[in-house]
Amino acid sequence: MLRTHTCGELSLEHVNQDVVLCGWVQRVRDKGGMIWLDLRDRYGITQLLFEEGKTPANVLETARSLGREFVISAKGAVIERLSKNDKIATGDIEIRVSELSILNPAKLPPFLIEDETDGGDDIRMKYRYLDLRRNTVRQNLQLRHQVARYTRAYLDNLNFIEVETPVLIKSTPEGARDFVVPSRMNPGEFYALPQSPQTFKQLLMVAGFDRYYQIVKCFRDEDLRADRQPEFTQIDCEMSFVTQEDVLNTFEGMIRELFAKVKNIDLPEVPRMTYADAMRLYGSDKPDIRFDMQFVELKGEDRDLTSGKGFGVFDDAGLVVGINATGCAAYTRKQVDELTDWIKRPQIGAKGLVYVRYNPDGSIKSSVDKFYTEEELKKWVEAFDAKPGDLLLILSGQGDKTRKQLNELRLEIGSRLGLRNPDEYRALWVIDFPLLEFGEEENRWFAMHHPFTSPKPEDIELLDKNLGLVRANAYDMVINGVEVGGGSVRIFEKELQRKMFEILGFSAEEAQEQFGFLMNAFEFGAPPHAGIAFGFDRLCSIFGGADSIRDFIAFPKNNSGRDVMIDSPSTISDGQLKELAIRVEGLNS
Amino acid sequence: MLRTHTCGELSLEHVNQDVVLCGWVQRVRDKGGMIWLDLRDRYGITQLLFEEGKTPANVLETARSLGREFVISAKGAVIERLSKNDKIATGDIEIRVSELSILNPAKLPPFLIEDETDGGDDIRMKYRYLDLRRNTVRQNLQLRHQVARYTRAYLDNLNFIEVETPVLIKSTPEGARDFVVPSRMNPGEFYALPQSPQTFKQLLMVAGFDRYYQIVKCFRDEDLRADRQPEFTQIDCEMSFVTQEDVLNTFEGMIRELFAKVKNIDLPEVPRMTYADAMRLYGSDKPDIRFDMQFVELKGEDRDLTSGKGFGVFDDAGLVVGINATGCAAYTRKQVDELTDWIKRPQIGAKGLVYVRYNPDGSIKSSVDKFYTEEELKKWVEAFDAKPGDLLLILSGQGDKTRKQLNELRLEIGSRLGLRNPDEYRALWVIDFPLLEFGEEENRWFAMHHPFTSPKPEDIELLDKNLGLVRANAYDMVINGVEVGGGSVRIFEKELQRKMFEILGFSAEEAQEQFGFLMNAFEFGAPPHAGIAFGFDRLCSIFGGADSIRDFIAFPKNNSGRDVMIDSPSTISDGQLKELAIRVEGLNS
Repeated sequence: MLRTHTCGELSLEHVNQDVVLCGWVQRVRDKGGMIWLDLRDRYGITQLLFEEGKTPANVLETARSLGREFVISAKGAVIERLSKNDKIATGDIEIRVSELSILNPAKLPPFLIEDETDGGDDIRMKYRYLDLRRNTVRQNLQLRHQVARYTRAYLDNLNFIEVETPVLIKSTPEGARDFVVPSRMNPGEFYALPQSPQTFKQLLMVAGFDRYYQIVKCFRDEDLRADRQPEFTQIDCEMSFVTQEDVLNTFEGMIRELFAKVKNIDLPEVPRMTYADAMRLYGSDKPDIRFDMQFVELKGEDRDLTSGKGFGVFDDAGLVVGINATGCAAYTRKQVDELTDWIKRPQIGAKGLVYVRYNPDGSIKSSVDKFYTEEELKKWVEAFDAKPGDLLLILSGQGDKTRKQLNELRLEIGSRLGLRNPDEYRALWVIDFPLLEFGEEENRWFAMHHPFTSPKPEDIELLDKNLGLVRANAYDMVINGVEVGGGSVRIFEKELQRKMFEILGFSAEEAQEQFGFLMNAFEFGAPPHAGIAFGFDRLCSIFGGADSIRDFIAFPKNNSGRDVMIDSPSTISDGQLKELAIRVEGLNS
Repeated sequence: MLRTHTCGELSLEHVNQDVVLCGWVQRVRDKGGMIWLDLRDRYGITQLLFEEGKTPANVLETARSLGREFVISAKGAVIERLSKNDKIATGDIEIRVSELSILNPAKLPPFLIEDETDGGDDIRMKYRYLDLRRNTVRQNLQLRHQVARYTRAYLDNLNFIEVETPVLIKSTPEGARDFVVPSRMNPGEFYALPQSPQTFKQLLMVAGFDRYYQIVKCFRDEDLRADRQPEFTQIDCEMSFVTQEDVLNTFEGMIRELFAKVKNIDLPEVPRMTYADAMRLYGSDKPDIRFDMQFVELKGEDRDLTSGKGFGVFDDAGLVVGINATGCAAYTRKQVDELTDWIKRPQIGAKGLVYVRYNPDGSIKSSVDKFYTEEELKKWVEAFDAKPGDLLLILSGQGDKTRKQLNELRLEIGSRLGLRNPDEYRALWVIDFPLLEFGEEENRWFAMHHPFTSPKPEDIELLDKNLGLVRANAYDMVINGVEVGGGSVRIFEKELQRKMFEILGFSAEEAQEQFGFLMNAFEFGAPPHAGIAFGFDRLCSIFGGADSIRDFIAFPKNNSGRDVMIDSPSTISDGQLKELAIRVEGLNS
């Protein structure tokens, strides 16, 4: 090795030893004949000392020629530091350098390689290899490695076997848009990159593999929102001879183990909530349950405390629903107006916000005092189980839309009240998702999870009666309001799978052409099976306490799907196009 | 869980327990009122017992309706077997079944699901999910999982960090043909799938990651030979601040650890041989050193024991070289003729074979007695250090071509003599590869390893004098004559890298356009670094004692790059093509 130690390991016990360190110049201070140099590598920082009169002249000269990010090798004796630095692990010692060589000089980096950098997103993406030198970014990837290690350890220990499934597969019409790969050996034909190894893991169950997992790259050619990447990584899992209960227990165990090992956190037990309850009580299929603030309906299926008092907005609404912003009675009119403006923004689109202030003195003040007596409002307050000092915030309108708006308001209020503590973690299973959802635009039913998801056995008869009511044995894991994983019990009978494709509007021929291999496989002895997949990038970002998955990916792409560092995608040669038997439309045609 | 135990775990200690097993029907014997059923899962086989009079009638009836590969669930009591079967782990017990249900029936499989199957390659590829049920195939994938686990454990323990590099990257002209992916968001532009993460791992070194690895899919759009796959897996590694020696030691350690853990074999120390010696002594850059039989030159650079005696073939040859087939003097004329025919086949293409038989009585008989005296032949025999009873097999012609032919002959003789024991493992480092090789057809120099490989420092001055003589700090690991991995010390200075691209015929603009990001990165403080990649599929096949990598891949493609199970590649819709702004030439244009 070119070094005897790393920059993170020397301490008082090494004093008087001769060592060789290699690394990058983080910082140089040259003052009163002394030079202190912070040398950095992946493991830490060690201070190098040069001193006029004591350090050989040529070494001093070399030291004075160094710039930030030069790669150097320094030999010297470990000595105790006069003024210790307890901010770094090696702060008790420094190296009195006797030999110094420049392994590679460096141009001045375009931004500061410090925890707090002056570089904007774009420049840091372009010089990603420099951004990766920063502690914060490197630590994210080290965390990612740890999450992968503990995931594998947990699953290996339960007899899961990691199997690599192919990347060059077949394009299917269901789901998101595929990335495709023209086949040179089969002109006019294309592979597709997998959106997930779904069918392969089911075939592995048919093959008797019993417990499969894979930490695997998946691909979706979607228009990129802020936090999507065209390639992303899943922890993909499948089990045979299990019920939904077994899957939930197994992977609740995994998540709890990861929190214990990676974060040293004992995650509370993971409650279960039906999709219907999640929507009714939180207006979301991924509620943040770090705080309660459940929805209360003033007008809905069960009761109506608002109609017929002359307030047309509520009279016309199908749903009047609100939350209790506990302890917020002191909100000023201005604050409530500001909340009203916030919720009327186009992104949320509420028409207005009704408030009821339950003053500490027991009096009630609302924005609809004109229409409702204090007694009537008192009933509202009771419905919310509110205490003096609370503030009710109420929306009205059409059911699902209004609930979604109220969900936004709830999260906002939760944030403002400091109820969404980033150091607190609460996981939740949302279960009993609807099997199907109706696409108004396409005028047909779509699988809410995917076409291989099994309806709940007790709902199968509804497949012939009311598709919208059929619930699936499908489940999502939600942590702090973020969906981190989801899965389902699968269909394993050919006939039911055939029926499912029929419901989704596939002709028998299309179903056979696209998924014939799977339906055929079901004829040769498919076991009952179920599975789940976790978004690995997302999971890492949760463990890392960050909002963006991009910081947990070594070389991410930007929102146009470009890697600006390597400048990809790019044009390819006419020769390549010709070999692949394709032409670019409108450019060279 | 639907079962209480697996089919591989019950033993005498479970006798009298009630258990539930799930699995596939392997075999049913129905005789004299007794039915024995072998139930199979991934963990083993357990015998189920049904008995007229004792087993409930409806259970008996169901049992009699079962066919091969039906998926069933059986409940019953564990009882001791009268006639034990020591071939299976559960052979001491059987299950007296009290409840039986068919979880899924099965059509008769198109081939036998047994260790020895009657299915040909094509049908087993089409029904891969059935082939994967066979013990031998499943065990290969379990072995693969173990190799991956121990690889990760070894590298994790040495502070290597696994980093995922992107799959959607940029097409580059050097190396094999790229698979490309049209970008919908950037019409007319394409991503490429990585042939290896080479540049990314080097950028990770620039980023200070210091020790990187990844078990990663790579892609090459090459015409497929028998044992190539368009997608394959590498153990990809890179280290900073190291010499070649450090890399060799680190990965020799890894391979030895894998042999110890996976095969329980203490691999002998791994010798090192220069490329020049490998070619001179074995005519191959991947010699099988399980046996010696090194080449001996009768006419070459150092001596000439053959010219001027009237044998024109040797007189005209640049090289006369042979091997000592030790102990083969008893080979009959017919056997030698057959060997001669073998080596004259077009695949090998030798013109002829000269033999010298050193008889046990000390006399010498050769096919060139006409031209050489016994005394002259005696000198040959001495050159080979042959003993009475040995047989010299000699080829002649142009240097490299002849050596390659003799390599084939050496391997064949080794096999015939039983010197290539599949249970014996000998690994070897081949080092000091040439940096460049000349492509006659293209009339230019090519990088023998890749364009990022560093010349040996002492050979750098030859870059301006004699490119063919420049050696690289490049190395291959060879096990039993199979190349399992290779790597090199990398160039880390921009100027040398620029020069290398120039030698490879890139214009400055081309080099900048294709690899500018890497050369730019080298300006910001690149550390000295080196790396290696192992062919993971190949390594698994070696551990599994098999010749083909295909058996160690869950869902391989055939020689036309097709997955015949899912029928991929396939055509895609006009809508998809249009969105991607491409057309298929000659089909819809």
